[in-house]
Order: sequence, then structure tokens, then C-alpha cells
Amino acid sequence: MERKDIQKLLQELADGKVGVDDALDRMHASGIEDLGFARLDTDRERRTGMAEAVFGPGKTDEQLEGIIERFLDRSGTVLVTRLEPDRAAPLQARFSGLRYHPLGRVLEGRPDRDPWCPPVAVVSAGTSDLPVAEEAALVLEHLGHPVDRINDIGVAGIHRLFSVLERLRTARALVVAAGMEGALPSVVAGLVDRPVVAVPTSVGYGASFGGVAALLGMLNSCATGIGVVNIDNGFGAATLVHRIVPGNDGEGAP
Amino acid sequence: MERKDIQKLLQELADGKVGVDDALDRMHASGIEDLGFARLDTDRERRTGMAEAVFGPGKTDEQLEGIIERFLDRSGTVLVTRLEPDRAAPLQARFSGLRYHPLGRVLEGRPDRDPWCPPVAVVSAGTSDLPVAEEAALVLEHLGHPVDRINDIGVAGIHRLFSVLERLRTARALVVAAGMEGALPSVVAGLVDRPVVAVPTSVGYGASFGGVAALLGMLNSCATGIGVVNIDNGFGAATLVHRIVPGNDGEGAP
Amino acid sequence: MERKDIQKLLQELADGKVGVDDALDRMHASGIEDLGFARLDTDRERRTGMAEAVFGPGKTDEQLEGIIERFLDRSGTVLVTRLEPDRAAPLQARFSGLRYHPLGRVLEGRPDRDPWCPPVAVVSAGTSDLPVAEEAALVLEHLGHPVDRINDIGVAGIHRLFSVLERLRTARALVVAAGMEGALPSVVAGLVDRPVVAVPTSVGYGASFGGVAALLGMLNSCATGIGVVNIDNGFGAATLVHRIVPGNDGEGAP
Amino acid sequence: MERKDIQKLLQELADGKVGVDDALDRMHASGIEDLGFARLDTDRERRTGMAEAVFGPGKTDEQLEGIIERFLDRSGTVLVTRLEPDRAAPLQARFSGLRYHPLGRVLEGRPDRDPWCPPVAVVSAGTSDLPVAEEAALVLEHLGHPVDRINDIGVAGIHRLFSVLERLRTARALVVAAGMEGALPSVVAGLVDRPVVAVPTSVGYGASFGGVAALLGMLNSCATGIGVVNIDNGFGAATLVHRIVPGNDGEGAP
Amino acid sequence: MERKDIQKLLQELADGKVGVDDALDRMHASGIEDLGFARLDTDRERRTGMAEAVFGPGKTDEQLEGIIERFLDRSGTVLVTRLEPDRAAPLQARFSGLRYHPLGRVLEGRPDRDPWCPPVAVVSAGTSDLPVAEEAALVLEHLGHPVDRINDIGVAGIHRLFSVLERLRTARALVVAAGMEGALPSVVAGLVDRPVVAVPTSVGYGASFGGVAALLGMLNSCATGIGVVNIDNGFGAATLVHRIVPGNDGEGAP
Amino acid sequence: MERKDIQKLLQELADGKVGVDDALDRMHASGIEDLGFARLDTDRERRTGMAEAVFGPGKTDEQLEGIIERFLDRSGTVLVTRLEPDRAAPLQARFSGLRYHPLGRVLEGRPDRDPWCPPVAVVSAGTSDLPVAEEAALVLEHLGHPVDRINDIGVAGIHRLFSVLERLRTARALVVAAGMEGALPSVVAGLVDRPVVAVPTSVGYGASFGGVAALLGMLNSCATGIGVVNIDNGFGAATLVHRIVPGNDGEGAP
Amino acid sequence: MERKDIQKLLQELADGKVGVDDALDRMHASGIEDLGFARLDTDRERRTGMAEAVFGPGKTDEQLEGIIERFLDRSGTVLVTRLEPDRAAPLQARFSGLRYHPLGRVLEGRPDRDPWCPPVAVVSAGTSDLPVAEEAALVLEHLGHPVDRINDIGVAGIHRLFSVLERLRTARALVVAAGMEGALPSVVAGLVDRPVVAVPTSVGYGASFGGVAALLGMLNSCATGIGVVNIDNGFGAATLVHRIVPGNDGEGAP
Amino acid sequence: MERKDIQKLLQELADGKVGVDDALDRMHASGIEDLGFARLDTDRERRTGMAEAVFGPGKTDEQLEGIIERFLDRSGTVLVTRLEPDRAAPLQARFSGLRYHPLGRVLEGRPDRDPWCPPVAVVSAGTSDLPVAEEAALVLEHLGHPVDRINDIGVAGIHRLFSVLERLRTARALVVAAGMEGALPSVVAGLVDRPVVAVPTSVGYGASFGGVAALLGMLNSCATGIGVVNIDNGFGAATLVHRIVPGNDGEGAP
Repeated sequence: MERKDIQKLLQELADGKVGVDDALDRMHASGIEDLGFARLDTDRERRTGMAEAVFGPGKTDEQLEGIIERFLDRSGTVLVTRLEPDRAAPLQARFSGLRYHPLGRVLEGRPDRDPWCPPVAVVSAGTSDLPVAEEAALVLEHLGHPVDRINDIGVAGIHRLFSVLERLRTARALVVAAGMEGALPSVVAGLVDRPVVAVPTSVGYGASFGGVAALLGMLNSCATGIGVVNIDNGFGAATLVHRIVPGNDGEGAP
Repeated sequence: MERKDIQKLLQELADGKVGVDDALDRMHASGIEDLGFARLDTDRERRTGMAEAVFGPGKTDEQLEGIIERFLDRSGTVLVTRLEPDRAAPLQARFSGLRYHPLGRVLEGRPDRDPWCPPVAVVSAGTSDLPVAEEAALVLEHLGHPVDRINDIGVAGIHRLFSVLERLRTARALVVAAGMEGALPSVVAGLVDRPVVAVPTSVGYGASFGGVAALLGMLNSCATGIGVVNIDNGFGAATLVHRIVPGNDGEGAP
Repeated sequence: MERKDIQKLLQELADGKVGVDDALDRMHASGIEDLGFARLDTDRERRTGMAEAVFGPGKTDEQLEGIIERFLDRSGTVLVTRLEPDRAAPLQARFSGLRYHPLGRVLEGRPDRDPWCPPVAVVSAGTSDLPVAEEAALVLEHLGHPVDRINDIGVAGIHRLFSVLERLRTARALVVAAGMEGALPSVVAGLVDRPVVAVPTSVGYGASFGGVAALLGMLNSCATGIGVVNIDNGFGAATLVHRIVPGNDGEGAP
Repeated sequence: MERKDIQKLLQELADGKVGVDDALDRMHASGIEDLGFARLDTDRERRTGMAEAVFGPGKTDEQLEGIIERFLDRSGTVLVTRLEPDRAAPLQARFSGLRYHPLGRVLEGRPDRDPWCPPVAVVSAGTSDLPVAEEAALVLEHLGHPVDRINDIGVAGIHRLFSVLERLRTARALVVAAGMEGALPSVVAGLVDRPVVAVPTSVGYGASFGGVAALLGMLNSCATGIGVVNIDNGFGAATLVHRIVPGNDGEGAP
Repeated sequence: MERKDIQKLLQELADGKVGVDDALDRMHASGIEDLGFARLDTDRERRTGMAEAVFGPGKTDEQLEGIIERFLDRSGTVLVTRLEPDRAAPLQARFSGLRYHPLGRVLEGRPDRDPWCPPVAVVSAGTSDLPVAEEAALVLEHLGHPVDRINDIGVAGIHRLFSVLERLRTARALVVAAGMEGALPSVVAGLVDRPVVAVPTSVGYGASFGGVAALLGMLNSCATGIGVVNIDNGFGAATLVHRIVPGNDGEGAP
Repeated sequence: MERKDIQKLLQELADGKVGVDDALDRMHASGIEDLGFARLDTDRERRTGMAEAVFGPGKTDEQLEGIIERFLDRSGTVLVTRLEPDRAAPLQARFSGLRYHPLGRVLEGRPDRDPWCPPVAVVSAGTSDLPVAEEAALVLEHLGHPVDRINDIGVAGIHRLFSVLERLRTARALVVAAGMEGALPSVVAGLVDRPVVAVPTSVGYGASFGGVAALLGMLNSCATGIGVVNIDNGFGAATLVHRIVPGNDGEGAP
Repeated sequence: MERKDIQKLLQELADGKVGVDDALDRMHASGIEDLGFARLDTDRERRTGMAEAVFGPGKTDEQLEGIIERFLDRSGTVLVTRLEPDRAAPLQARFSGLRYHPLGRVLEGRPDRDPWCPPVAVVSAGTSDLPVAEEAALVLEHLGHPVDRINDIGVAGIHRLFSVLERLRTARALVVAAGMEGALPSVVAGLVDRPVVAVPTSVGYGASFGGVAALLGMLNSCATGIGVVNIDNGFGAATLVHRIVPGNDGEGAP
Repeated sequence: MERKDIQKLLQELADGKVGVDDALDRMHASGIEDLGFARLDTDRERRTGMAEAVFGPGKTDEQLEGIIERFLDRSGTVLVTRLEPDRAAPLQARFSGLRYHPLGRVLEGRPDRDPWCPPVAVVSAGTSDLPVAEEAALVLEHLGHPVDRINDIGVAGIHRLFSVLERLRTARALVVAAGMEGALPSVVAGLVDRPVVAVPTSVGYGASFGGVAALLGMLNSCATGIGVVNIDNGFGAATLVHRIVPGNDGEGAP
């Protein structure tokens, strides 16, 4: 509950419009919907600019169905990540209007709207990094951002990167996904002046240790202006960009 | 060299204003000043929005002096990080107008200007995290950003955090430095809607492994909108914020 | 064998009631039942306040059946952990009166009794942490403790935690299970005055390293009053609480 | 601020005894004293049963002096851990009545009182583990607990442990500090029925990795009833025991 | 694009043979073929002496087919690594002339030619290391190098190594693949005067940590003249040797 | 080739009984049988006291069959470890007289003989450690040693260990297999005066890290007289014991 | 206390020669001497074949002096390891007859005796491994074993090893110390038939990780008959050999 | 001893020119000079193309002096690495003609000769990497190779790299030293066709883990033709290049 809401409530109390017990209850129960197995944070969008998303793994079909129903009822909007195709189909059958994107494993629905602000670039180093990059791109689009997808410009053939330099420089922010040595964010961040969100991917073998090599490479970048998220966390990269670059969900152009 | 610069050069060549060899040389040598032991990237500010900074450790006094001299000659601006006090004093004697900040170990100088945009919050979890937070704050101020320092609001006494909630929500972006379990960014990011740059610090002992525990905590945050930088990298956090929130170096209000 | 038992035995020897060889044998063989493949510690409940529990994985069906039979014969009580559903069914068919709890994967049986002491809180940060929390809750109930289950109050929406603060403070001890960054025990321990047993879970991906991030977070907590157990070890957390808070197995109210 | 305090405040507001702004301020500022570089959690003892302790390393002499002064002014009680002898002497000169314990590196002061409840056992595996064990013992004594120190009973000569078995079983709770392979807590926990708080120490070399071997050993114990704290964290072990076994600070016998 | 190519292009521009826009486009688009999901580096062989190879895992059948088609169209040569047998068969059916080698999991095709230079030795420590060694051997043969395969001469029976010493010394370069403790490259490098490329394999269990033990052993070799590649990276070893020892693809005998 | 063999060969050469080329060949080819995919070390038993054993995983059925055939032809003795049951059956059908032991996954055959020397103890901490202990026991029996198997005497119920103390002290050497915290070897080595070979097992979960916790515990033992082998390496433990305690393969009683 | 001692005591009790309380006390206090800060295990030599040794680091001068005095009083024998030279001198001044060996940092004294059994080989791979090898050699000599020191035969020049092959084969057991990749024990164990005790040393830099590379190499050896001890643990290697090869402390020739 | 040497010796034996015992001795003692504390490998240059180098750390002044004397006596050539300046001075005073290079910490001497073959490039990413790069350059020059030093062309300002592209492509082989994320070798190897030897340096802090981040980045490079050496191992990189590119020590132009 916000200071201004509390102030308003206290005023009502001082004015005799509510009683002490009512005021207490309202102070403690706001912004939560308790489903038993989950406690939905219905206040999150107002607080953080983005509604709670649903992490698919580890939830039963019944739990997913219950959560999605509540989100759709409240706002007509829902976002589920890391959902395997066989779990998406029955949910699409149950709730009309949900879209499922198999490459990025995202299930989502929202009222239509047109993106209009300059795009965010979602860059991947190699073809194998596409699923992670796509998760970021889909979440950004769900949140109202136009996305410029730029694939397969890894540093072993660096002229490929220079061939898309203008697109990189036009973007308002950049998500850069790379596995193996994870060097692409360093090179990109040295060539643009907008924030770079680096996503290490688990692509690689042997001493890549499931993405650790790429993660360490990004954390130790000699370039400036880079923020790193967890391995394969395209979703997290998108949410950081969403706070950096307001989409057209808000009241006006940024 | 930028596409538009190359286009201009090619046009001059097509117009017979320059010769082929001259054009070739200009295409390869722009934006570099070679000091022998270092190759200054004099083009970096135009390219990335921020001039090259100087990492103090591992450079001899002579190297530092030479590099600082070149930066001051070119732009009147220089930023040296992680410089111990005994190394700063002779450099301040040699170059007038440099400021040294011992807590954050930053030596810097720049032409005066007034910060005017809404502040960036630099938050620390405990008193021991102050040097890292201060490095971030000083670099931000060097780059023209007003800073709101908020210290010692770690999660073991979480009411301290709520007592400064309005200040946290007013900031355009937040740097949050924490050692030990590094939980503060998660809690903060759940309460604000602006980007959170998380800086793990090496504060702790035993199984903190020099900041690894805090780093992993931040990378695995259950909250959204967080970008992580290297352990103790207050400088890197500031440079990411600088790309997110333009200072008043630029042409106008953000 | 206890000092007082040895004293009694020595007295019998001094009194000529037993011979030297008999005394020797009794000193060495007490408290063990040898099944060949296992050596049951039949003395453990008297010694440690809790009978030996059976760890399900890595035992053959025959071994499990043999061990359960001996426990039921001796005391009518048995506790098997980490047992998959398909292994539980034949054992329930073989031994009447055993209960199986699929979420926590616990098979157990004991004579009825009514829990009556104030409850222990078993808290989980997210829905995915439920199986581990449930293992702790089931083992506590098996040992005679009433349990207050409080789910999904992770730190990204910290108002959820405050909405249950009274329940947290009422508990005699708290088990707190969390994956990802594992920050919940720190926040809880800063708000209550009873012992907090922190259970890192393997929930997460990438740099969570199968629960290591949560484990390190809990070990490095800036709060006091926290004891940590192994990753996913809900059973171990319950046994620590059982030593802290005597159940109604004993002779009276704690 | 507690529910009952808020209720009282709301009642005063409803009764017109305080104004809305006053009420708001009191809700946000309670329980904090802001020293600039630190934000003392003056409410912690009421909330968690133990006042905030001061971690010595990383604080300047001035900061330490300022913090100690505030604690003594408020309650006459202060506890500083990990303080080197040369830093303790001037503080003892400045504040009369502070005791310094060099083996455990603890500086503390409090009003006199007599411990009377059954003791807590603080056990160490070897002579080199003594400083960590002593930190735990001193903090426990500072908090009002009688302590039974039992040293050098490591598992390589296990008859030493049996020679003190009665003392181990008499204790209301046990802190067990061990380095190297850290096996002592497992053996002890198999012989007593009270909670065992295991403290891995950094004693060892080579593959002990600064206490990691002992830490892992304790987390993987085959015995039940063990809670683990960070490497060398005697302080943390004491605070957990303090929540388990109320000292005579409280209102009556436990 | 190479300096000499740019020079030529600039000359044409100066001579009025091409326009500015054409020149710009040719400078940016050369050496890339964009398939949408992949950006083929068609310039790589000229630049690095070896055409881009195709890493099989993580690509769909359609992507593989599209990439292979383009490579065959351009040069009649293609090299795919880590391709499982069931994926190779349809590709062989689709493109005539491709060879599949199941032990090394390599699919490749190229115009015929005769190797003639002295051989490269590909050495393996044990039978289980054969697949990795074979990957290296096949890639080398694909690139035109004769290969002398020397298997199962691990250090536990070091007389086996001496029985092939002449063959080891005859080779122009040596690839040495070993798992477990990875000691073979050290011994070999102490007996020959040509470069040794060490390939740790993931053969082993327990504390081999998937090849890390072998990798560390090779990096810490007390012998000189050793370069190490990633775990199981037979392909990478071959490409390094290819740069060391020119095959008969080039203009003449080395 | 041994010094005395070389001496003999040189004498024959000096005596004109062999030519220079023959002598050279005999010096290089002795003690090896080359099967192409494997280079059998036929000299190993004479050199090290034990014939080469065959590690099952990673070998094809044909390779295994070929190797077994050669061993049986030469000596009538063969030892294959880590062989899954479904691979053992056809080999037993192919070669009469081979025994397969499913718990320890050992396939072996040898001429009959009677063990007669005092036994080696093979000790396991828990039922789940049995397969590793059994591998050690079976290899020891294959090599001619009588074995005393002592199971399930882990340190959480340490009286079980004392009940078999005489058997532990009678053994000529002890193999001790333990997972989880791996504390058993320390306790045993403190109670006996014969060599203890410690085998960490991968039994455990979470922070046991596949046996690393047990391995580190054993390497850091506070007891003396312990040698450690790789995780789950029952075979290696047996071969060390075989060098310590000569079996009855030799010329007489040890 | 041993079974036969207990039997004797029980007989005395049965015979009325001792009372019950006396018997109890003797059963619990035997084999321990309590110095307050240390609990000497005076029974250890009888139990394990070797008296307790004193680990120097972490003990005060007073503690060392007290412990040494008690050992000399009891048996005239004492062994202190890892003692720096400046700490040894005053102890030698205080107790006549103690020898200090600076390379191996061992302080020891014992009654004279002549070693006579065939020697133990102590082998080192390089000159930098000498201190660890020397610790092993000195402890072995202290325990009565003749030692054959063989230095600097690392695998990069393997002919050096063959030049001492006869000495390696003559030894009754071998301690092999090696840093860096730690490959020497594998090669040695493949050439001899006696037990090899492998000691990884912390010699190396970078990816040797303080001896971890050597430790892993030795644990993963492809040779048989190797037991590994902790990094730099020359003492531990010697104690294992002492159990394998009885010295002339005992009653006769081995 | 080489096959052809043995053949010659056997022939002399067959011809009666030497006796059996003499022949045996010569076969075992060749190529070694035993100094007691060290066993010089005097045969190494003939065998591996490079004489044994001396690793400075961990050797006493006397040992260093003895070893240097022997090398100078034999060949007039010596190479000592990682020697601190204060240790070099007395050795230069003792042996005339030795050169000491403080940046690379190399002490060396050799007969004069003129390098003439095309140069090797030694590349460093940043100024802090210079000491490691310089070690490589000095060892290469000692071995007769001309070196082109190219400093400070890290990937954050990638145009610096393109400004020296011709020099990179002219080199016969390239040593590339980089710390932090270690991305430079990948970019370089994608632009040249000669072998790249990658040297990770320990430059960095926090999650660089003393060079591990750079090491992993290089091992996981997406470019081909790269061999990696240990962290900070400039010496090892030079020795690998020496085997790849014969210097003018040999009999002719390469």
C-alpha cells in the first residue's frame, strides 16, 4: 500500500468514514489474491510497471489453469514462460485468444494495441542462441515494444556485425544473447551508446559449463554500459529493457 | 569510422578531392592515439556516449601521467578508478584541478556544470558496502548525474527500507550494492518501477567466497527489472545507468 | 549403551547375577538389529528423540519391505522419505495403515494421537518450493507437531509476507524453504524472535546451480538466528525443529 | 511497527488525539536511528529477541566509536565481533566497562546478571578450532547463557568424546565447531537428543578450501537434528542457540 | 573486405567506374549470405584458410538442409560435426556424395584430391577416447591432411608409447586426446619436437568432472610446446593443426 | 623390458646369437598385443602384480568380445568392471566359465584357487553404498583375497561400529566406502592400526555434489593412515589393497 | 579401551577386586590426558600403531611447549609438523635432544634406533616439490623407516625416470609427490608392483588452483594401486606408508 | 636415447667394441646430469628442439646458481623465467653476459645471432596484460624469433584492432594475451589464417577469478585455429610457437 493511499485511508479514519478494524484489514490485505497454492501479487503492475508473469515449470496443469483464469479475469492479460508445447495446447483450447510461440516457449494474451516507439534490438550470436533471444523478443512484444531481431553475428566473422551496425545504433536498447565465450556484448557495447543487456546462453559443451563461461565473460567485459542477467534468462532481459524503455502501455510517447 | 563519414570520404574521393592512398589511411587511423604502451580510444565518447576511463591498478606512474596528460589536453576531462591515495597525491600536484575521493578511490577532473535532472539513487545494504556504492556515485556525478545516496537499509531490518520508500521510487534508476547474501536488489526491484542495477560486493567471509554468494543471489533474483555487474564494480554500474539516464552532458533535458 | 545401563549391568556382575562373557556380549550388541544388508539402529529414538527414518532411494523393494516390517513390529511406527508413488502402492498394499503423501513423497504410519502444542510454521517462497516444504511439514506432523503452512510469500512482492506476519510470529519455530536467490529466510528472521531453519531448494536454472545460489544466500544471511540444512532437505529441517520444539510424543507439554 | 501499535495509533487518530501527518510520520520513522553512515535498527531486540550486534571489520574507528556510543546510551549494552586487539584498546579507554576477549575477538559490555539456566555446550574438535568456538561461547555468555566449553574431542580419537558424553547430553543445545573433514557434529548428533548447531571452521589446508570441506560435510550429515551456519561463524551459531534456548534476559525460567 | 580489395574498389570509384552508393553497399555486404536464421560467412576460407564448418546440434533439419545446400552450391564442400547417425541418413539421401563417419559423427563432402604431405599423428590414450580422436582425424582428412592414427598408448603402460616413438617423431604435428588424468600430452611433448595439440576428453567418472581433470592436467603440463583446446573438441584441435601444417589445398608443398 | 632381460639380450648379441635388427625389434615390441582398437598391455601383471582389467563403458560389444578372448587365451583370467547386466549375458553365453555379479557389476573368470590369508575388510557406511563396496569386494576376491563384508555402520549410530570393532581390527587392510559426509574412514582409522583405503561414493543429494563432499571429507581427515581413491572407485581401492596385502596368487604366504 | 582390557576389568569386578564406581571411571577416563586447551590421545600408538603427532600452526608457544613436555615425559618421543624455523629454535633450547629439519619444517625427537628394513622410496617430480617430499621422508625416518630419496624425475623428461627404475622397483612402498599436472604417480604405478601413495603439491600457478589440478590428476589415474592424500600432505603419506610397511619399532622383521 | 643411437651402440657391442656392462650403463645414464637437488635434462634440446628452461620461484639462490653454471658451461645458453629483480642482480654479477628484462621477469643469455625470418606477433588486449605478453616476446627472442609487439587493441574499441590488421596478417603465428573476458583471440582468429596461441591473464577482479573467466572464454571460442595455454603462461605460449615456427637456430630458412 502506497503512502498516498495510506494517507487517504487515515483521513477517512480521522473523518470517521471507516472504523479502526476496517482500516487495519485494508492495510494488510490489499494487493493479494490467495489461491491456496499461490498468492497472486495483483498489485505488481502498479508498483513495478509490469504484471506478475507465470513461470511454467513445476506447476501442475490445474495450478496453471487457475492462475491464468484469474489473470484474464482481472486484466485480460497473461504471460506464461518456459511452457512446453504439449502443455500449451489444452490451455489454448480452454482460454480463447491466447497465443503460443514454440521457439521461445511463451504463452501469452493481451488486448490488441499497436507498437509505435523506436525498436529494441534483440541480437543473437549464433543460430543455437535463437530460443533464448526469442523469449526476450516475445516478452518485449507482449509488453508493447517493437523488436528488431538480428541473428547470427558472432565475433568469429566480425564483418557480419559491421553489416548491421546502423540497425544496432538505431535501437533504443539492446538485448544481446550469446553462448560459448559470450564475447558479443563487449564488442557491441563498444560500438553503440545505448544500454546493452547481456544474456549468457547455455549453448556450448565441455568447459562452457552450461553457460558459465559466457556468464563470466559478460560480467568481466572490458566495455561499459552492460547489465547481465542469468543464463538463458531472456525473460529477465526483456523486463529490464521494459523498465529502461517505456512501451506504449503508458500514457504517452516516452 | 561511421557510415556517414565514409560516405563523405568516398564522395571526396569520387570528386577527386583526395587520393586513394590518403583515403585508405584516413579510414584506418581515425579515432586512435598511440602512446606505445597504450592505444587511446579517442573516439569512444562519440561512439558510446562516454569517454574512455582509466583503470588505475597495473599501470606505472609514468603511464598514468602520460595518459592523464593526453586526456586533459584533448577534452579537459579525465576519470581514473581504483587509485590508491598515495598514488593520487603526486598526480594532483602535477595536474591542477583534479579531485580525489578516497572512499571511492576515484581521481577525476572535468569542466564545471550543474546537474539538474532528477536524481539516480545509489543504495547500499550495509556500512561495509559503502566504498563500492561510493565509486558508483562518484562516477555518476562525474558524468553529470545528481545522486541520492541511501545507506544501510539491508533486509535484516526491512522497516529501514520502507522508511525511504519514497526516495527509492523517485529515482530515475537505482544502483543497489550489497554483499553477503545480496538480497536487497530483489526486494527493491519488487517495490519500484525503474531499472535496478545490482552490484554484488565482496563484503562477507567464509562461504561468501569473495562476493560470489551475492553475485549468484542477484543473478537468480525472483524479481524483474534487474541487471547485474561484476563483483565490486561500482564503476560498471554507473556506466550502465549513464546509458539508461542521459545526464546533462547532452543537448537537452532527457 | 548408557552410563546408567552400564552401571546397572556392572552391579549385576558384581552381584554375581551375570557372568563376564554375558556382560561383554550385552555391552556390544545392544541397540542393533542386523538384517544383513542393513543394521537397524533400534536404540536411536531413546538416544536422539527420534526413531531412525528410512531414505527410500537406492534400496531394493525387498530391502524396503524388510526394514518396514521390522519397524512396524517393534513400534508400530515407520517413516520413509523420497519414495516415488509407484513404489509406495505395493508397500501400502502389503502393510495396512500406512499413509502415502505424493507431493512430499513421504510414506509413514504411526499410532493415532492428537497434536496440541502451538504450531510450527512451514513457509515457502514460491509454488515450486512446495514439495520440499511439504516434506518438512509431513515429517513434522508424523512426529506430532501441528503445522501452519504458509505458501508463496517470496520477497519480490514483500507485502504478501507482511499480510501473514502475525502467523509467522505465533509459530514456535519456522522452516523457510526458498530456491533461486534464497532471500526469504533473511527477511523472516529479521521479523520474528524464534529459530528459523532455512532450506535451500533446487528451484531455479542457470546460475542457481541446482540450489547452490540459495544455499550460499542462506549461509551468508545478514540476519541472526538461522540454521541451514542441505539443498531440498525438508526432512532434515523437520528433524532439527523436532529437537527444538518437543512434540506431544513426550511426557507432557513443552 | 507492530499490528498492535498500529491499532493503538489508529485509535488515537480516530479519537482525534493525533493528526494524519503525525500518524504517517510515526508509522515510518519508528525503530531507526540514522547516523548518516549507518542506520541503527533500534527496534531489533524487541522484534527478534536480540539487539543488533556490530561487525567490526570494514568500519572506521570513528564509525565504531559513534555506533558504540549510541548503543551504550540507549541500553547500556553493546556487542562488537571480529575486533582485533589493537582496535579494542582505545575503545576500552574511551568507554569504561567494556570487556575485550582476545581469543574470540569480542568486545562487549552489558549490565551484570547471573546466568542460571542449564548450560549450552560449546564443543570444538581441535585446539585450532578454539577461536571460533570461543566467539560462540562469548556471545552466548553476553546474551545470558551459561556455557560448558568442551575442547579437543575430534573423531580421530573417539574415546575422548565418550569420556564427556554425560556433559554433552546434559546441555540444552550444542554448538559444535570443527574444521578439516567436519565430522564431529554427525557423531555428536547421533548421541544426544538436543539441537546441534554445526560451525565449520577454516582450519585445514589444501583441499579443505578454507572450510568448504567441513561445510559440505556438515550439510550432508547422515545424522538428524543439525543446523549449519557459515564458515567460522561462531557468532551466528550463538544467535541461533539464543532463539532456541531463552536466556535469563526474559521474564522467567524457560 | 581486405585492404587490397578496398584499394581496388576505391580506385574504381576514383576512376568513376562505380558510384558512391554502390561502393558503400559493396563494402558492407561482401562475404555474407543471409539465410534469415543464419548469416553464412562465405568469406571465411579466404580469410582464415578454412571454410565455415557447421555445428550440428541445436539446428533443425530444415536449417541444416538449407545450410548444406548453400555450401555445396558455392564450393562443393561442406563439413558438419557432431551429427547423430539418424540425422545424417536423410541428408545423405538428399545430397549425393556426402560421406558420414559414425564413430566421429562427421558428415562431409568435398571434391577428390590426394593427400601427399607427411602425416599428422592423431593419438589417443585409451579406447574410450577414440570418438574424439576420430573427429579430429576426420576433419584433418577433410582438410587434406594424411593422418597417422595411434591408439591406446596411455601412460599406465608406458612401453606401449615407446613402441611407436618413431611414428610420433615423424609426424609434422600431433593431436593427443586423453581423458581421466590427461597425462599423455606431457609425456609425448617431452619426446618430440613438433607442436602438440592436447584434447581433454570427458572420459572418466567421479572427480574427472566431465573432463575437467584432464583439462587442468593439460593446462598445467610441465612439458613445453603444448596448446590445449576445449573438452572433447577434436574439431578445434584439427583446425589448429590445419593452420600449423598447410595441407595440399594450397598452392604447393609446404 | 627389464634390465635383466636387456642384459640377457645384449649378451646374446655379444655372443652373436642374435643380430642387431632382431635385438632392436625385441626391445621395442615386447609386452604388447595390438588389436587395432586396443593395445593390450600383456606385460602388466609381471610388472605391477596385476593383469590389466577391462573398463566396460564406452567399448562396443565387439571390442569387449575381442579383448576378453585374448585375455582368456593368454591366461584363463579376465576382469571386466562396470558392466551392465544386459551386456554381461551374451558374453557369458559366448565364453563359458565367466561369473557375473550384478550388484557390483563385475564380470570375471579365473582358474580356481582357495583363498587362505587373513581377510581384508570391506566396510560400507550405509545400504546405498553397497554397490561400490561390492565392486571392491569382488575385485579383491578375484585377485585371491578373502573378504569380510561389514555393512551399514555409519557414524550417526556409532555403537554399530563398536559392535564390529574386533572384525575391523582383525583385517589386514580395510576398504571403507561412504557417501554423504564421508566421515566413516576417519573414525575407523582412529581405531585400527592397518591401512585404510577410503572410497567416497556418489550417494547423497544437493550439496553432496555427486560425491565431492565425501571426497573432500576423506582427503581432509584428521586421522592418519588413510589413502583416498576416486569417487565410486571400488575397483581402484581393491587394486591398492592388492599391492598392500599380497594374495595367494604369489609364491607363498605373505 | 579394548575388549580384552574390559574383559580383564570385568573379571576384577566379578572377583570383587574393584568396585562398580571405580570400574566405571576407569572405563571412561583411560587413554586421555586433559591439558585444558588439548585432550591428548595417549592411547593412540597402541591403537593405531603411531603416537599422536602435533600440527604446529594455530597453536601458541605455550600450548606447544606444554604438549611437547607431556609427550617427552611419557615416551621420550615427539613429532611436530609444519613448524616455522623461528618457532623451533626456542623449543630446541627448552628441550634438549630435539632435531629440527628446516626444509620439511619438522621438529622431532625419539630414542635412537637403527633402521634395517628395505627402504621406502620418496619420489618428487621437481625441485619445487622437495619440501613436501621431505616432510614425508622425515616423518618416515622418525617412525623408523629407511628412506631412498629420488628427486626431479618429472614426466617431461621421462628418461630420467627410467634411469632410476631399479631403485623404484626395490622400494617396499613409494611416496610420489608432484605438482602442476601431477602425472608422475600414474607413470610410476604402471612400472612397479608396490603401493604408490600420491601426494599432490601446491606447486604451479594459474589453473593449478593451488594443487587442485594435481589432486584431480592423481584421483583419476589410469594406473592401479594408487592412494591419494591431501594437497601438500607429506605427513599423511608417511603415516599411510607406516601402516603398510611396519618399521623396526615392532617386534621383528616384517 | 634414440633408436639410431641404440642401433649404433648395439652394433659396437656386436662388433665387440664395447662390453655388455658398458652398453647397459650408457643406455641408462645418457642425457642426465644429476646435481642432487636437480636432475638436469641435458638431452632436451636435441629431443624437443628447445633446451630445458629454469622456473625461478621455489628455488634457493644456491640452486639457481648451480643450475645456471651447468647450463652455461654446456652450451653458453640459459633461460630463467619469473625471476624477481632482486634475485637477478647477484646472478648477473656472478655470470657475465646475462641479460635481465624486468617487465617480463626473464633472465637469459645466449651466443649472438641475427633473427631473420618473418616475425611472430605478440598481441595484448590491454596495458595490464603487458608483463605476460612480454614474457612470451622475450622467450621468443631468446629462441631466435623476431617479434612484432602489438599492444592495447582490446575489443571494447575494435577499430584499434582493424588499424593493425595488416601486421596481424603478416605474422607467421600469433600470441594473443588477454585478461578479463578474454575475447580478443576469438576476434583475431576470425581475421587471420595463421595459428593463434591464446594466453589468458589474471588481469581483472571479482568474477574474473584470477584469470579463469578469460581461460574459459578462450577454451570456448567460436573461432577456429586457437590453442590455449595456462593463465599468465607467456613462456608456454612462446614454446608452442617455437615448435610451430622454426627460428634461425636450425639449419636453414623455414
